[in-house]
Amino acid sequence: MKTVRLNQETIASLLDDLLKRSPNSYGKYENAVAEIISNVRSKKDEALFAYTEKFDHAKITDKTVQVTQQEIDEAYERVEPALLEVIQKALVNIRSYHEKQKRQSWFCSDEKGTMLGQKILPLQRVGVYVPGGKAVYPSSVLMNVLPAKVAGVEKIIMTTPPGKDGSLNPSTLVAAKEAGVDTIYKVGGAQAIAALAYGTQSIPKVDKIVGPGNIFVALAKKAVYGQVGIDSIAGPSEILVLADDTANPRYVAADLLSQAEHDELASAILITTSEKLARQAKEQISEFLKVLSRREIIEKSLDHFGYILLADTMEEAIEAANAIASEHMEILTENPFEVMTKIRNAGAIFIGESSCEPLGDYFAGPNHVLPTNGTAKFFSPLGVDDFVKKSSVIYYSREALHEIHRDIIQFANCEQLTAHANSIAVRFEKEEKQ
Amino acid sequence: MKTVRLNQETIASLLDDLLKRSPNSYGKYENAVAEIISNVRSKKDEALFAYTEKFDHAKITDKTVQVTQQEIDEAYERVEPALLEVIQKALVNIRSYHEKQKRQSWFCSDEKGTMLGQKILPLQRVGVYVPGGKAVYPSSVLMNVLPAKVAGVEKIIMTTPPGKDGSLNPSTLVAAKEAGVDTIYKVGGAQAIAALAYGTQSIPKVDKIVGPGNIFVALAKKAVYGQVGIDSIAGPSEILVLADDTANPRYVAADLLSQAEHDELASAILITTSEKLARQAKEQISEFLKVLSRREIIEKSLDHFGYILLADTMEEAIEAANAIASEHMEILTENPFEVMTKIRNAGAIFIGESSCEPLGDYFAGPNHVLPTNGTAKFFSPLGVDDFVKKSSVIYYSREALHEIHRDIIQFANCEQLTAHANSIAVRFEKEEKQ
Repeated sequence: MKTVRLNQETIASLLDDLLKRSPNSYGKYENAVAEIISNVRSKKDEALFAYTEKFDHAKITDKTVQVTQQEIDEAYERVEPALLEVIQKALVNIRSYHEKQKRQSWFCSDEKGTMLGQKILPLQRVGVYVPGGKAVYPSSVLMNVLPAKVAGVEKIIMTTPPGKDGSLNPSTLVAAKEAGVDTIYKVGGAQAIAALAYGTQSIPKVDKIVGPGNIFVALAKKAVYGQVGIDSIAGPSEILVLADDTANPRYVAADLLSQAEHDELASAILITTSEKLARQAKEQISEFLKVLSRREIIEKSLDHFGYILLADTMEEAIEAANAIASEHMEILTENPFEVMTKIRNAGAIFIGESSCEPLGDYFAGPNHVLPTNGTAKFFSPLGVDDFVKKSSVIYYSREALHEIHRDIIQFANCEQLTAHANSIAVRFEKEEKQ
Repeated sequence: MKTVRLNQETIASLLDDLLKRSPNSYGKYENAVAEIISNVRSKKDEALFAYTEKFDHAKITDKTVQVTQQEIDEAYERVEPALLEVIQKALVNIRSYHEKQKRQSWFCSDEKGTMLGQKILPLQRVGVYVPGGKAVYPSSVLMNVLPAKVAGVEKIIMTTPPGKDGSLNPSTLVAAKEAGVDTIYKVGGAQAIAALAYGTQSIPKVDKIVGPGNIFVALAKKAVYGQVGIDSIAGPSEILVLADDTANPRYVAADLLSQAEHDELASAILITTSEKLARQAKEQISEFLKVLSRREIIEKSLDHFGYILLADTMEEAIEAANAIASEHMEILTENPFEVMTKIRNAGAIFIGESSCEPLGDYFAGPNHVLPTNGTAKFFSPLGVDDFVKKSSVIYYSREALHEIHRDIIQFANCEQLTAHANSIAVRFEKEEKQ
């Protein structure tokens, strides 16, 4: 973990470093992904199952691709009861927070006889991708499925890669069932994304695909964007802790490590006005590292993408934090709410020393699917807005149109779109002739 | 224009036809676009100006790339006063409609000492692309710039390709100035998109790029998606008229033509329960074609992508309309509001015979940047939401965290993320030791 004095140069070099983790830098896989998509699009199930055998080493057929009720029942028997209990508790909080995001269709009318508004409707079919492999994250299932459910999506489909024996992790299945997934398919990778985007004999085409995945999944989602909707492209996790000399160095250290353990590409950054805190936090990190189970991952992450930035003033620290636009930002300062008002760019803002990042990952209710890699400057946390779409609604009475019809004709003629002008003019041709 | 009986087969073949117009089918330009982006990214202004000379045949330098106040003054002198007047009138309506879309940051607190919410902020810098060439659309400038302005975007940058002599169309400049664009640059094509996404010596990097363009612009936007935000990928224009035997065939014909004139790839579709209306509308189209200035474009558009679909019932007609998910949908039926309640998928819905599509294009206030090519199933009209982004806000008091800390530790341990569990546990280690 590098400790450096914060200035224009260090921040520029840090931003360059972080961007090296971006899916946009992985051009070499794009052709492979394009080929997978093209094959699944043309050969459908046949290609989908062939890739599943090739990449996941599992033999799946149209008879076994869909998870059965029996498999779900077995998962409930196998899952730890304590885990089921926390899934159910977290689910209540997550649903409640997302319910508050719901919006109604709206309109405004005026007495000239006009009505303008927006009709807001849920998407009909959504695909949720859930990664397989060593790491199993039932929390991620909840966070991706529940906003869609709250939005009112009619059919929620989940895909996740099977193990070699064709089985899925029971906690993934239980979380999916609890959250309200309608159908689960045992496919993963770019081939699953292609199947969701174009449909196969076994898997229905969806309107939008969400959920995290490896680089193949991320590139496949980008490739099918436009054919279907996608959530923002997820990169490795990040935490930025903004702290002054009132912060507890043991908390700061523990929180930095909580993100570094995700991934060798994860990034943990402390920006502080206190040299003493910087030193003490670093000591605590060494202490914790002795006992943490994911030490190897954490050490690589901290070596490459871990920073302690020393700022002269809190203003300077905040400016740097806004430039980095971290996925997670913790504010451990004397007046954390005051600092929060000055934060422009962050996926989620955790205020004060009892609001640590894992609280948001699992339990508080806000979504843990957040913009990474500086994209918090223009992307938002996953939410109900991602599972609805709007249609403009326009009504004018004849009188209301008459009042402005000459203006529209004028505008259309200026743009040399005479058929546009004609569409207005034809409605008043009798009056004009008189 | 083909007249066919509506059934599963005809609708499937129509949807196939329409998708041929999609930017996703233009893979052959992707490499050329990737090369342009890569060159502008590495060589910046040098590459940008070289491409401008190559594609736009205009010599632009860092001294002339930015539009001057003098050029804007001259544009005001040259623009038709009547056009300036309608621009100013339309602007009031567009701004007023988009003001109604604005949302506030929100939070909920409870007496356990928790506060959860969303901080909603405008993007800081936005790039608006405006096509050059023969067609000049000041209305498009208003529709792309005003939602950003209403959202509170700090800096709005516009790029548009110059003519051979380095000049821009005065009505584009005047519309930009009226709408509140901060800076205008004389570059276009994929090279302009690359400059906005990565920044050059002359052109600042933006957070999001919006605006229509040709296939190179569309592919470039898709390629830089993730590096910056983009609006949805625009395809050729579409109108779908849903009509029964109460509809005026002359209005129906004029409205179909109003979209067909945009582009040879534009699509005009009538779905009706009335064979008489279908026949009469077709006759009226032939009549109008004799006098309309853009006859050649219209004829090609109608030949390839124009359809009259005869439905047995209005329910069947509505189902087909929802499957097509047209950019613009007009409802010319006896009870148009009732039909509107059954429409799931459309960019904009025009209700009744005095609410024709050009009213929405220019004047009523809703945005004319709308999802095309079936993407109304998951994309929305351009609006204020496209120019803001959200951050989750999470505050828990020590007491509130204490109450649930064991649940979070349980969840984290189940996911084998022990550093997550540690971040919670460390906060209560003194209590635990006692």
